[in-house]
Amino acid sequence: MKKAAGSIALLHAGQLLTLAGPRGGRLGPAMRELGIIPDGGMLVRNGVIESVGSSEEIARQLPNDIDVVEARGRVVLPGFVDAHAHPVFGGNRVDEFELRAGGASYEEIAARGGGIRSTVRKTRAASEAELLSLARNRAEWFLHCGTTTMEAKSGYGLSLAEELKILRVVRQLNETSPIEFVPTFLGAHAIPEEFRDRPDDYVDCVVEEMLPAVVRQNLAEYCDIFSERGYFDAASTRRVLGAAKAAGLKLRMHADQLTNSRAAALAAELGAVTADHLEQTDTAGIAAMKGAGVQPVLLPASVYSLGSTRYPQARAMIEAGLAVVLATDFNPGSSPTPSIPMVLSLAVTQMKMLPAEAVTAATINGAYSLGRGDRIGSLEPGKRGNFCVFDCEDYREIAYWFALPLVHSVYVNGNREV
Amino acid sequence: MKKAAGSIALLHAGQLLTLAGPRGGRLGPAMRELGIIPDGGMLVRNGVIESVGSSEEIARQLPNDIDVVEARGRVVLPGFVDAHAHPVFGGNRVDEFELRAGGASYEEIAARGGGIRSTVRKTRAASEAELLSLARNRAEWFLHCGTTTMEAKSGYGLSLAEELKILRVVRQLNETSPIEFVPTFLGAHAIPEEFRDRPDDYVDCVVEEMLPAVVRQNLAEYCDIFSERGYFDAASTRRVLGAAKAAGLKLRMHADQLTNSRAAALAAELGAVTADHLEQTDTAGIAAMKGAGVQPVLLPASVYSLGSTRYPQARAMIEAGLAVVLATDFNPGSSPTPSIPMVLSLAVTQMKMLPAEAVTAATINGAYSLGRGDRIGSLEPGKRGNFCVFDCEDYREIAYWFALPLVHSVYVNGNREV
Repeated sequence: MKKAAGSIALLHAGQLLTLAGPRGGRLGPAMRELGIIPDGGMLVRNGVIESVGSSEEIARQLPNDIDVVEARGRVVLPGFVDAHAHPVFGGNRVDEFELRAGGASYEEIAARGGGIRSTVRKTRAASEAELLSLARNRAEWFLHCGTTTMEAKSGYGLSLAEELKILRVVRQLNETSPIEFVPTFLGAHAIPEEFRDRPDDYVDCVVEEMLPAVVRQNLAEYCDIFSERGYFDAASTRRVLGAAKAAGLKLRMHADQLTNSRAAALAAELGAVTADHLEQTDTAGIAAMKGAGVQPVLLPASVYSLGSTRYPQARAMIEAGLAVVLATDFNPGSSPTPSIPMVLSLAVTQMKMLPAEAVTAATINGAYSLGRGDRIGSLEPGKRGNFCVFDCEDYREIAYWFALPLVHSVYVNGNREV
Repeated sequence: MKKAAGSIALLHAGQLLTLAGPRGGRLGPAMRELGIIPDGGMLVRNGVIESVGSSEEIARQLPNDIDVVEARGRVVLPGFVDAHAHPVFGGNRVDEFELRAGGASYEEIAARGGGIRSTVRKTRAASEAELLSLARNRAEWFLHCGTTTMEAKSGYGLSLAEELKILRVVRQLNETSPIEFVPTFLGAHAIPEEFRDRPDDYVDCVVEEMLPAVVRQNLAEYCDIFSERGYFDAASTRRVLGAAKAAGLKLRMHADQLTNSRAAALAAELGAVTADHLEQTDTAGIAAMKGAGVQPVLLPASVYSLGSTRYPQARAMIEAGLAVVLATDFNPGSSPTPSIPMVLSLAVTQMKMLPAEAVTAATINGAYSLGRGDRIGSLEPGKRGNFCVFDCEDYREIAYWFALPLVHSVYVNGNREV
């Protein structure tokens, strides 16, 4: 059971980043506007933000019985929203991490039966209770890095029973963790071993068996697919996402990660909410996303972790007026980090995003990409009282002092959780 | 005053990394040998390691009155040794961090009076007490990342009085922090504003005024210089380091960071203990270091942070049989991270060092580079009881789960400090 919502007043934040603004994702140049209140304050009642303003204004309307959090010399901002993550899996892939250092490529390891398939074996071998325990531990990691809402994809089961098992774990996580998890069905993550020689049969299985069961049991809000050479081609992508849309799921898509297969344009054609990765996406793909209002979800931690230097063209996307999102891509193969602050560092140092753009991408824009822009992602009256307090005086320090845990405390629905 | 040394027994470490071996830095292939004891134990008395072995062996000799630390399911290894760091400075450079994201280069920012010079202004403006307070806060950061011994360079004062001020701060830090600081005089870090048009006069000042005072007041063990185009050329480097050696200081050297000026070979010629950075060093430089027994100190966090992809040739150095060291280069301009675990991640993912090589580089090899290989850097009888406990089952996870604070606890001289 989730905790009862809390009430709290916050005063004297050195910088209170409201991210307030009109409804909708922040497009391009608007990503620089953080709505910073110096010496800021906030009042949260029963989990919901009642007012935000200067400490003076908030102090004037302070109820008698409310706990006051003193944030002098600290930065306060909305809890991070991590819009692309794979937190439920068995084991880890530290062996492959070492092999890659020794020179093997991600694709070579996959060809040898490693990669996603090795995690599938370990995930299938784990009981539901074991997976839940592992995922709970990881949820604590995310929370300690300042994340209060995150996506959770399936995709390491790759059979009807195993995919449902993972999505049930996500549901149980959601019932008990302070973090809100948004479930995404990713049955089309890879072709499992037993379908190696008949990939089309696996697509049949995803469309005809898994999808109807996931929808019937109300286990997912989104459907995703790994649209990539050697995984799922354009025809399979159309089939899976078309069926998912018809069944009432919203769409996300792994697009143009390893090769430019015009997957960003396909995401636009199919009406996907997001196209994710985009390391190989070109100008035409960017224009297609802009035309259809697709949000790009950029995952620099996986580029870093794979030792690649081919980051997605974040600047071109911002300049094209897209509502760019940043996320961790947390997973055991290509991005073993739960840290949005580290993703902000990567965005600034490797993709030349401004610190303000990066913060917007990991809060309000992430929230809209998960269909929750009206409830979270900014600190405005009526939204959830989800916020982080950082031990620094300037929000830019969150990305600047990298790999340093500067999180002071984290609140969800008005309750302190870290 | 330092705390009195402690006594403690540790039992049941899932992996106890001893790093035990013959005297001397671990050369090349020997960097892969971590001396791992499964289910390991250790006995520390009055700050000194008395015995190390299986938990069974240690349990048999357990004194009655000793506190026992249970480390089941955790990794225990020597406290990290950070052999290149600039922890004493005023302010930060978050403005430049943002400018660089906007496209300005490190050298352009320096030419506009930013860069090192801006930190010099803020450091001079700060009182000794203010600097000490800032540095103490940073020492806590290092300790929480698992570092128990570190170098501390001067170099943001650039006048007799200001360089002495910084080195006195290092001395005071050393008297009060659990971390052991090794002081390095880096008066030749940059040409200060007031000597802009007469750099040779500044070299005179370093050699004739600063060095004698530093030595007389016993404020440094090492002398370092930024040997680089636009900073200090080969002739100045010979002059400064020659005088330092004659005065009894040991030598370190910033070499070949921005250009290949054959500084690695110069370090070999001058008998430096280390040559640091080495991003541009070629095969000839590597051979020269090997011939003279110079230890390369690699600083991948500064390469990352500057958005460069030109990492030093770690593999070639290991294969040449050098005793490679990894360090943070912690400083406000090019490497604002105190985290050795992050440096391990960078070493593995960006420089293709094996996780074991990276751990060796940041413990025993770092210790030898600081002249303390006989006292720290491995867990062996007679050495200090300085160790970290990590919340993971396999040491490779320390680099794998990056930017995640997996440190469970940190002990210095047998006392728990984190």
